[in-house]
Amino acid sequence: MGKGPKSRPLRASDRAARVQMPIIPTVAEWIAQTPGTISLGQGVVHYGPPPAALRKIPAFLADRAQHKYVPDAGLPRLRKAFEEKLRAENGIDAPFARRILVTAGANQGFLNALLCICDPGDEVVLLSPYYFNHEMAAGLAGCRAVCVPTDRNYQPRLAKVEAAITGRTRAVVTVSPNNPSGAVYPRETLLAINRLCAARGIYHISDEAYEYFTYDGAAHFSPGSGGRGAHTISLFSMSKSYGMASWRVGFLVVPEHLFDDMMKVQDTVIICAPAVSQAVALEALAAGRRYCLRRLPAIARVRERMLGALSRIPGLLTVPPSRGAFYFLVKVRSVMDDLTLAERLIREHKVAVIPGGTFGIGKGCSLRISYGNLASEAALEGTRRLVRGLKAILGG
Amino acid sequence: MGKGPKSRPLRASDRAARVQMPIIPTVAEWIAQTPGTISLGQGVVHYGPPPAALRKIPAFLADRAQHKYVPDAGLPRLRKAFEEKLRAENGIDAPFARRILVTAGANQGFLNALLCICDPGDEVVLLSPYYFNHEMAAGLAGCRAVCVPTDRNYQPRLAKVEAAITGRTRAVVTVSPNNPSGAVYPRETLLAINRLCAARGIYHISDEAYEYFTYDGAAHFSPGSGGRGAHTISLFSMSKSYGMASWRVGFLVVPEHLFDDMMKVQDTVIICAPAVSQAVALEALAAGRRYCLRRLPAIARVRERMLGALSRIPGLLTVPPSRGAFYFLVKVRSVMDDLTLAERLIREHKVAVIPGGTFGIGKGCSLRISYGNLASEAALEGTRRLVRGLKAILGG
Repeated sequence: MGKGPKSRPLRASDRAARVQMPIIPTVAEWIAQTPGTISLGQGVVHYGPPPAALRKIPAFLADRAQHKYVPDAGLPRLRKAFEEKLRAENGIDAPFARRILVTAGANQGFLNALLCICDPGDEVVLLSPYYFNHEMAAGLAGCRAVCVPTDRNYQPRLAKVEAAITGRTRAVVTVSPNNPSGAVYPRETLLAINRLCAARGIYHISDEAYEYFTYDGAAHFSPGSGGRGAHTISLFSMSKSYGMASWRVGFLVVPEHLFDDMMKVQDTVIICAPAVSQAVALEALAAGRRYCLRRLPAIARVRERMLGALSRIPGLLTVPPSRGAFYFLVKVRSVMDDLTLAERLIREHKVAVIPGGTFGIGKGCSLRISYGNLASEAALEGTRRLVRGLKAILGG
Repeated sequence: MGKGPKSRPLRASDRAARVQMPIIPTVAEWIAQTPGTISLGQGVVHYGPPPAALRKIPAFLADRAQHKYVPDAGLPRLRKAFEEKLRAENGIDAPFARRILVTAGANQGFLNALLCICDPGDEVVLLSPYYFNHEMAAGLAGCRAVCVPTDRNYQPRLAKVEAAITGRTRAVVTVSPNNPSGAVYPRETLLAINRLCAARGIYHISDEAYEYFTYDGAAHFSPGSGGRGAHTISLFSMSKSYGMASWRVGFLVVPEHLFDDMMKVQDTVIICAPAVSQAVALEALAAGRRYCLRRLPAIARVRERMLGALSRIPGLLTVPPSRGAFYFLVKVRSVMDDLTLAERLIREHKVAVIPGGTFGIGKGCSLRISYGNLASEAALEGTRRLVRGLKAILGG
């Protein structure tokens, strides 16, 4: 034993080693070490799932069959309900039996999509600043994330997107409303990207986790609507809209020609999304988007007041337009490293935000500020600490 | 728009296209089309989680923080409880903070492991017949599954395993008690494989999802025990032992030097395992292995009687030794394609089993028979149908 060729030493794969450390656990640790910190960090809402949905859990669990595996693609009733939601709200016509899968969150859905359409070495176009897990997933799938910077308002630059497409490109990814910038892409922009993908024979992956979170008249648009589903992969999530982050339920809407191969990926990665979570999601969908929309005015008020406070310190930072999700991605006038700044804001001023570097912002000092997680008073106290902290640290 | 290089047509990736179709949904569809079918197919137990664990759900959900994301690696209390279980039952000394992650089932844990230690083009040694999702995961990770046939009793052949290791090999995978064969590998065999991996500087991935399911004096052994955790990745699951298949909870025990990179993978694939499932798992662990072991004698009785019935038709099939899990992987004396045989058994005789081809058995006609899912009477009626069906179809 022990003869023969020796492998490389025991260590992680290059693809894992190259991927960035996830920022959220790092920030969470700083917060844990600094009791009393107000978090404007992680992207979560302040409310939980509909109470009526939770009350149905015991009845669901009383059926012993529900503890065994449920169908890979998800509970048929849940998929059917989502098919109806897509048709009514998004203009997407996607028969569930051949186009809809329930995933354990939209992250798993995105990884599924990459594994299903990309081979190692293929390229995926991301608009930067990007949602960090998309860039990480591309790396772990053995693909190359080709990052195309958005403009100063965090809007896509179509010519740059087009120029980034090569013979190895398999998809362009858009996130609207956007994480981390809060930008909502206009219908025309999304249609142009979608047409570009069609013309070049690649997929358009559209992440719509924040679809209900728009403000100041901004309107969400689903690029997979209007019969554009043959090359559009759409991702949705229950995490934000229905306060179900820890339950891990998302939806993956795929072109019909990918469905069988996607089932292979789904079976391998997760077998099925957790059944109890699917049962709660079904009841939450019955409550409908009203559940989220009723909570939106309060979030919008927090947003307004936070925006007001941030706008009063133009010498310290600028706030590009953000009419969606629950983020501001502000540009701080400082040469300080944003990771250092974020750590000092927690340790010295008890307020947590996310440093821009994690979203692929290579130059300048940016911070993502999240306002979905807090009731009004806490959010405003957090904003006060942020303004005070920035002044103290940066000497504004 | 539409100028520039044209990509290949819209279709699935080669890696997805090459992966086999998952057999379970296929068989499930045949069963759905044949009402009254008794399933000796899918690998599930007949019982659900501890009722006391389910009763704790409302108290857990009353804490609104539990609906937000929970820590990527899992609830600290659950990981701590599993650390204690590993030390007490498995002889594995794995401080949870640096070595244990909760995954959404052992499948996700296995994919995590591959992404964390293998680059595209790397090789993973599987013993065949293999657990199909392991082979599928290797393909989707862009790796090559190098399959080493076991002997006629489904036991590993060490020299063949050693001969299969090349400079690209990153791990040898063992599953004991085995799915699909039910073989329990002796301690000496597992130690020899583990030493071989150490000598060659590669990982040993040990899937122990069926650890409690042994019969006739067979004993489970954890190769990661006794300080061998620096190159051993151990996988566990709540799905079988605690009847929690649909809840998606598994455990991934990794060498400490992989932990940080594994957290990147975990964050990207799933963020965190579903919180409610983790809460139930914590209570289930409090009930302890007794919960499973109390149910084992009934399963063992089904096994005995099924074994008796199958042994009475030596002209039709042979039953290699199986002292673990809840499977027999029988060799049918027929030139018939096993997929065809499995379909006919359902459609004509209303009994479902899994064709051997899905486990990488390339020659001969094999069927996997599962006996964990049924109360005694149904299992015996299923066995009668199977014997009757085989006689009718094969003319025994």
